[in-house]
Amino acid sequence: MEAIQKLRIRGAPAIGICAAYCMYVLARSVEEAAPAAFQTRLRAHAALLKDARPTAVNLSWAVGEMLKTAEAHAAAPRSVLLDALYQKAVDIHQDDISKCRAISEYGLSLLKDGDGVLTHCNAGPLATSRYGTAQGPFLLAAERGMHIRVYADETRPLLQGARLTSYELHRAGVDVTLICDNMASMVMKNGWVQACFVGCDRIAANGDTANKIGTSGVAILAKHYGIPVYTLGPTSTVDLSCPDGDRIPIELRDPEEIRSLWYEKPMALPGVKCYNPAFDVTDHSLLAGIVTEKGICRPPFTESLAALFR
Amino acid sequence: MEAIQKLRIRGAPAIGICAAYCMYVLARSVEEAAPAAFQTRLRAHAALLKDARPTAVNLSWAVGEMLKTAEAHAAAPRSVLLDALYQKAVDIHQDDISKCRAISEYGLSLLKDGDGVLTHCNAGPLATSRYGTAQGPFLLAAERGMHIRVYADETRPLLQGARLTSYELHRAGVDVTLICDNMASMVMKNGWVQACFVGCDRIAANGDTANKIGTSGVAILAKHYGIPVYTLGPTSTVDLSCPDGDRIPIELRDPEEIRSLWYEKPMALPGVKCYNPAFDVTDHSLLAGIVTEKGICRPPFTESLAALFR
Repeated sequence: MEAIQKLRIRGAPAIGICAAYCMYVLARSVEEAAPAAFQTRLRAHAALLKDARPTAVNLSWAVGEMLKTAEAHAAAPRSVLLDALYQKAVDIHQDDISKCRAISEYGLSLLKDGDGVLTHCNAGPLATSRYGTAQGPFLLAAERGMHIRVYADETRPLLQGARLTSYELHRAGVDVTLICDNMASMVMKNGWVQACFVGCDRIAANGDTANKIGTSGVAILAKHYGIPVYTLGPTSTVDLSCPDGDRIPIELRDPEEIRSLWYEKPMALPGVKCYNPAFDVTDHSLLAGIVTEKGICRPPFTESLAALFR
Repeated sequence: MEAIQKLRIRGAPAIGICAAYCMYVLARSVEEAAPAAFQTRLRAHAALLKDARPTAVNLSWAVGEMLKTAEAHAAAPRSVLLDALYQKAVDIHQDDISKCRAISEYGLSLLKDGDGVLTHCNAGPLATSRYGTAQGPFLLAAERGMHIRVYADETRPLLQGARLTSYELHRAGVDVTLICDNMASMVMKNGWVQACFVGCDRIAANGDTANKIGTSGVAILAKHYGIPVYTLGPTSTVDLSCPDGDRIPIELRDPEEIRSLWYEKPMALPGVKCYNPAFDVTDHSLLAGIVTEKGICRPPFTESLAALFR
């Protein structure tokens, strides 16, 4: 749980996978033998785990899947129940790998050889499993010898773009250029990008999408310059119970992440206030499409997203 | 000159003032005694000085003023010529103080008690003299007991917003909140700012304005959210010989400013490419007004800017 809060494990899909294995380990630690007491204790663990990070829906989705599995085997012997939980966690993990592959294929279908794409934060292998979501198409393109130029926002304050995305893509042989977040406007104005690919932490029923802070700014700039924005993520990121982005809770984080993290010495006076939201919500009107493992949803999203679950 | 290149002296007006004193010191060092040879040597120094930073027009403006002074006293004894140069540098400096005060007054006239304002980079006392330009109205407001909430972009990669703006404003008792550049969209969406105040390094005849990288992004976001953007600077920043922003040269700086500057260890692999423009151009259509020491220019800027010089 600490690993999720401190972002040692990060990226919505990776958090979901981690939470599933976490539930298995927690279930093993439950001392209560009676089935009802066991389930009560496991639900208490689940509630704490869900609270570790409020914005990403994959966390509560994965925890919910694990609880359902536990309930389905409530009357079974403990060893059978634990085996079922372990198998469910492995399934969630394997399932994520095949979903990421499908998302990457659909994402790549939106690009042509020589295109430039701007991306924000990290939704590659380090955030998910194997290919990743928003960065998956670039890895797939490199495997196939396609040339895609990627511009990676460094993504302050935690610098996932510099530390993770540019690392992953550079190592995979992708043509990646790292920029500061405030340079995206100039890169777009220069005509260097033909699309923006971003990940997502929660998609509301109307297509409003929570993702790393700064994503809404990228989308507004892209609209200004006439560049399409695609959000890429598994259907487990879609929360049909959430009608719009206003209902998505936004995590506020420690001001020290802005003032002093990474630096040799603090960059602002200790008394200076900071506002440090971890996510923002991109309005559905700014998105050209939502790329899932089941295909690409187009506006109006209220209809195309609902159709995913029929 | 090294101090200007390395940004030990920075901010367009401060660079102009520094360049004026610099020309005086260089004139004292000229060994040639014959008037024509003296002028030739001084012009050679001036050319080098102007090249130290290409974007800000104040540098070449101040150097030009000093050259004119030298030419006007070309036939005078050396001591008279040097005195005239010294006096001209002092005049440029004093003039900047009174211009900054006037700009601050005009800027403050655009705000009312309780307003929130977003600012980018630094155009306060550390970039100019006394009040500064874009940050001057906030200091003036604090002196008068007005409450203005300021949101300061940290301004990557050189962090002038964190290191200079938040420092200056916090020390002066202004209610300032430091944010990462990519949080401006959310601050605007929250309804926390009623205006954006930014500085400028060069204003073309049509109102296109070069300023710190990221300014064009702020202006596009503000337009999306219906928030007016004002650029504040002395008329010496206006370059009527430059028809539009496409003709303003943009300085590209060292990738290490993105990869490793300030940090305990580098944040990206050494082989990762970076694009690091120091400035961008904000299209005149995104500006509600240009605030100078002679008043506030409104669109159409081609006319209102030209009127400043009549």
